Amino acid sequence: MSTLLESYTQGRWFGAADRGTPLLSAVDGSEVARISATGLDRAAMVNHAREVGGPALAALTFHERAALLKQLALTLMAGKDEFYALSRHTGATARDSAIDIDGGFGTLLSYASKARRELPNDTVHLDGPVEVLGRNGTFVARHIHTSRRGVAVQINAFNFPVWGFLEKLAPAFIAGVPSIVKPASNTAYLTELVFRRIVESGVLPEGSVQLLCGSAGDLLDHLDGQDSVAFTGSAGTAAILRAHPQVVSAAVRFTAEADSLNASILGPDVEVSDPEFDLYVGQLVNEMITKAGQKCTAIRRALVPAALVDDVVAAASERLAQVVIGDPANPDVRMGALAGLEQRDEVLTSLRGLTKSAEIVFGDPDHVDVVGADPARGVFLSPILLRANDSNAPEPHDIEAFGPVATVIGYTDADDAVTLAARGKGSLVASLVTKDSALAGRIVRGLAAYHGRVLVLNAENARESTGHGSPLPVLVHGGPGRAGGGEELGGIRGILHHMQRTAIQGTPNVLTAVGRQWVTGADRIESGIHPFRKDLGALCLGDTIVGGSRQVTRADIDHFAEFTGDTFYAHTDPEAAAANPMFGGIVAHGYLVVSLAAGLFVDPAPGPVLANFGVDGLRFLTPVKADDTLTVTLTAKQITPRQSADYGEVRWDAVVSNQDGDPVATYDVLTLVAKPEQD
Amino acid sequence: MSTLLESYTQGRWFGAADRGTPLLSAVDGSEVARISATGLDRAAMVNHAREVGGPALAALTFHERAALLKQLALTLMAGKDEFYALSRHTGATARDSAIDIDGGFGTLLSYASKARRELPNDTVHLDGPVEVLGRNGTFVARHIHTSRRGVAVQINAFNFPVWGFLEKLAPAFIAGVPSIVKPASNTAYLTELVFRRIVESGVLPEGSVQLLCGSAGDLLDHLDGQDSVAFTGSAGTAAILRAHPQVVSAAVRFTAEADSLNASILGPDVEVSDPEFDLYVGQLVNEMITKAGQKCTAIRRALVPAALVDDVVAAASERLAQVVIGDPANPDVRMGALAGLEQRDEVLTSLRGLTKSAEIVFGDPDHVDVVGADPARGVFLSPILLRANDSNAPEPHDIEAFGPVATVIGYTDADDAVTLAARGKGSLVASLVTKDSALAGRIVRGLAAYHGRVLVLNAENARESTGHGSPLPVLVHGGPGRAGGGEELGGIRGILHHMQRTAIQGTPNVLTAVGRQWVTGADRIESGIHPFRKDLGALCLGDTIVGGSRQVTRADIDHFAEFTGDTFYAHTDPEAAAANPMFGGIVAHGYLVVSLAAGLFVDPAPGPVLANFGVDGLRFLTPVKADDTLTVTLTAKQITPRQSADYGEVRWDAVVSNQDGDPVATYDVLTLVAKPEQD
Repeated sequence: MSTLLESYTQGRWFGAADRGTPLLSAVDGSEVARISATGLDRAAMVNHAREVGGPALAALTFHERAALLKQLALTLMAGKDEFYALSRHTGATARDSAIDIDGGFGTLLSYASKARRELPNDTVHLDGPVEVLGRNGTFVARHIHTSRRGVAVQINAFNFPVWGFLEKLAPAFIAGVPSIVKPASNTAYLTELVFRRIVESGVLPEGSVQLLCGSAGDLLDHLDGQDSVAFTGSAGTAAILRAHPQVVSAAVRFTAEADSLNASILGPDVEVSDPEFDLYVGQLVNEMITKAGQKCTAIRRALVPAALVDDVVAAASERLAQVVIGDPANPDVRMGALAGLEQRDEVLTSLRGLTKSAEIVFGDPDHVDVVGADPARGVFLSPILLRANDSNAPEPHDIEAFGPVATVIGYTDADDAVTLAARGKGSLVASLVTKDSALAGRIVRGLAAYHGRVLVLNAENARESTGHGSPLPVLVHGGPGRAGGGEELGGIRGILHHMQRTAIQGTPNVLTAVGRQWVTGADRIESGIHPFRKDLGALCLGDTIVGGSRQVTRADIDHFAEFTGDTFYAHTDPEAAAANPMFGGIVAHGYLVVSLAAGLFVDPAPGPVLANFGVDGLRFLTPVKADDTLTVTLTAKQITPRQSADYGEVRWDAVVSNQDGDPVATYDVLTLVAKPEQD
Repeated sequence: MSTLLESYTQGRWFGAADRGTPLLSAVDGSEVARISATGLDRAAMVNHAREVGGPALAALTFHERAALLKQLALTLMAGKDEFYALSRHTGATARDSAIDIDGGFGTLLSYASKARRELPNDTVHLDGPVEVLGRNGTFVARHIHTSRRGVAVQINAFNFPVWGFLEKLAPAFIAGVPSIVKPASNTAYLTELVFRRIVESGVLPEGSVQLLCGSAGDLLDHLDGQDSVAFTGSAGTAAILRAHPQVVSAAVRFTAEADSLNASILGPDVEVSDPEFDLYVGQLVNEMITKAGQKCTAIRRALVPAALVDDVVAAASERLAQVVIGDPANPDVRMGALAGLEQRDEVLTSLRGLTKSAEIVFGDPDHVDVVGADPARGVFLSPILLRANDSNAPEPHDIEAFGPVATVIGYTDADDAVTLAARGKGSLVASLVTKDSALAGRIVRGLAAYHGRVLVLNAENARESTGHGSPLPVLVHGGPGRAGGGEELGGIRGILHHMQRTAIQGTPNVLTAVGRQWVTGADRIESGIHPFRKDLGALCLGDTIVGGSRQVTRADIDHFAEFTGDTFYAHTDPEAAAANPMFGGIVAHGYLVVSLAAGLFVDPAPGPVLANFGVDGLRFLTPVKADDTLTVTLTAKQITPRQSADYGEVRWDAVVSNQDGDPVATYDVLTLVAKPEQD
């Protein structure tokens, strides 16, 4: 008798009292584990997440959460061999397992890195610039994102027992939202093993992640408007969850990633002799056999110029004939087993639908040769390539056979290819193989509204391409319509799905206090100490130095033109400058203005300011004429200590003004500033 | 017999064959119009939007659509008197009508302005920077937004017959998505009148807007995954629409703005003698009586320190006693009628619920004195102020009386105020009146997750504040949970709800062709003609000038320090500079580097380049040491012709490199460039 999978709830492992349902190896039919959630108090899980996990995460900044995710990923990676060993039972080859296991850990690392680089070391994310709502500047607004105060329920599919839960968990965790992970039953043993190692690591705060092995039961009944459900699986289940009475009435945030009839288009410009032809066929075959085609992103529809249908079928069939199928532990095997008997039955049912308007041109649904396994015990299936008899028949565009199955469909021209791709009614991904970038631009603009991701492949990028079927943590994953209408990943975008966007209106001082970024019009602090003499611990938002004044003479302008070589007529030719509609006479170089401004605010002696590493948003607002007098006001705007360095970043608001008080130039100066010295 | 309202469908006005349902004046009970959509082919409306309106909008750029919206707003404004006259029958005072009518036209103008300033003169919006996916830079990605290829169905509430439809229509129109507008029946006559003027103006492309007066019927049955539904109204109806089988199964994009028990918090720091106390009470009363309290954003819960409950009740009652109620056309009248008998009945039902745990401290639900109207014929109601007996009782936090009704609720401390506000389970807006910005920062961070907007009011911004109840086009409108979980407006944010975000992967040349912004690694065109000599018509993306080289000597650095006054030790003190962890010796000023770079790329003679108006994203990547030699590569990155000027903006990619080919500085240079001269 195998082990009963447990759920991790309220800080402990829970085992059901019954013996549950057996989960069988896809390779040899042996019982790998049993699963049951009988007696699990799901309401208590939700409460635990809200009352323990949420507050624990809220106490950490984005950077602190990122550091934990990184530590977790490194811990898991160090012990990944046992995950690979168990993964075999799902039918996965070592290469399939790498996509799932290393892909999952890589997603944690990517989120850890993105969060540190693109989010502040704080709990609030600022969305867009300040909007000035009144003429006097006392009433201003900006948008912020704050963590939702609920739980992220994650209902995953069977095909990626590791990546599937980590790609949902990572953005929620960075966002400060606790997760309840519910794996699909038939591969839940691998999720549970990884989860055990997560719990054992002790890296994540208690309550921030819980695991539900078994039925979701009444879980959704306990959700409210601060909670979310992210689902990956069939469109049928997605529809049931989306219309769940509590999800509907409480406006629970719901996202789904469901069926998808992804298309791959061979460009109308490609000939059989082009390397792009081989790239196209190779990618098609690869997508058919990876994970035995059990990928939401796999190619289901091969859209090729009508004249090349025979060539594509022949070339793909030739490659498919060489694919070794069998025990995924065997290094010669390129395609393993389907996840279970039920999955294979569904594929065969879909195939019967497809053959109404397409014929099988490669593979036999009833027979497959396997290596190192017993086809009567393992869930094997031959790759099946079909050829559509009628490109406009509904079946190839509507029936997703979730296995090693694809249909070759002919198109007449580029517009027809776009129209046929859109017949999928919304897909996760499309790919296009073409030599012609301009043509790619047009086709991609046509495809985009129907897809979450579009990949354009050619001979130039083929070596670096991650392929049609690979979602990447920095790119959004999801698609409109049939694909579920959801969106996950995409770097920071995926994090913001777990946060609430709120418009904040108030005075500049209020906005500064809310967003912890100094806002124009807020108090400036002139303490008598130059702010460049303050380390990261001493510096406050609003600390200000007013430098100047300095007069800019015509001789300065002439000299600067001569010294730098920037002899643009507006700086050197009075007559031509007078004719310029913007200037009406000789003006100082913008670069002269900011150079002189630096001379007015810089404090020269060594101190905590280590370097000026950049300038953002420089705008020249008023031309500077000869004999104008400049002053500069530099104010500490945002302070971002780095977790793992003895310095941090300080963003300064700079305003250069002329003798009339008109702003001449505004910009942000970016510096690195040392932390306080340790005793 | 009054007129039968018509629907505008497929380019013509449609009148039902039957006589429909009468719509009565809220002020005198007279029949204003009749409404029916019997016989209307709603499937044909959807098809017309998709087949005529969508393509017409797709042929226009964001800027072109913006110009049309502006023209439309100016046309409508010029004839607004007739809208005001008809608006009176809805019960609206002139001030109420201004919010609806001028507010609606102002929203069109705001969107026209935002689109021109913040979107490219194109049909694709770029979302975020390029992500480099491979080491050699041949495989890169970026996110784009393209117009969804469907129809935006807009189901509006009765309380804002003009603003309500324009605030939904404007973002959809800019996004390139055609709208079907369905007003609530009882004030549809005003929507229909404005719509008639829109059609007569001929400004908007045919098919881009249609009007459905009467029942939605089977409209939603015809939607698919490219379509969207935006609903404003009751939570009950929102739930029905959200769970509509076709909405669910096709993943129709759905957004709702529903019930909301908005709170206004009197800060714990405010005393009765403070001006903030009066501001608080004044705002509360104003929100109760404006539109007779029939605003989704009105204050329902007045959260005040327990010790000040009596003072707030007394002060608010004193002000309420002075409110003149009656015929909204009478200039003395400050509160008009409710929209209809059904609405008043609902308010009275809600009141009965509220009085389970609160007592009425101002107003009589059964009696109201009115001026210039017959209370037996018009739908009048006294403002009703309640006082909660128990702050934690459910009723004040759960029952929305959609009329001139609010409940005063005591709280113990700031945390309690936040907790009570959150009891609303998600609201459109909260306001906080406080003198203390730091306290505001803490309270707002607590409130934000439960709200779409938070306003902080004090004596400093009161004169400029637009008030608790006013959604603004540049700020998001919507709230989580009970408020519907939706989001509208928010400037560009509201436009993007009508677009699909797609990750595009390909070579830099492909990304350049798709996004029409030159991407690092894409082809550079060195034609022999300096690109500064090309006008906006001749310039192409990728046009490049390579300037230099120039050696930077120690004398140059010394001189620049002396000339500008920027004597920071890293440029002047060899010993101190050597100790700096970033530099390890004397380095050139960053501003010197960019000044010299300009000298290398500028073409001095008068030409189409009119001005350099700014610099974006300047980063200093490698320190420049004495005797390093610089070159600069400047490439046309993005070209944005202005609709209404004889020039446009050109963004240039600038890379300064040293003698080893290492990038020293990267940035974007922003210029104004003339269009071709007209013959």
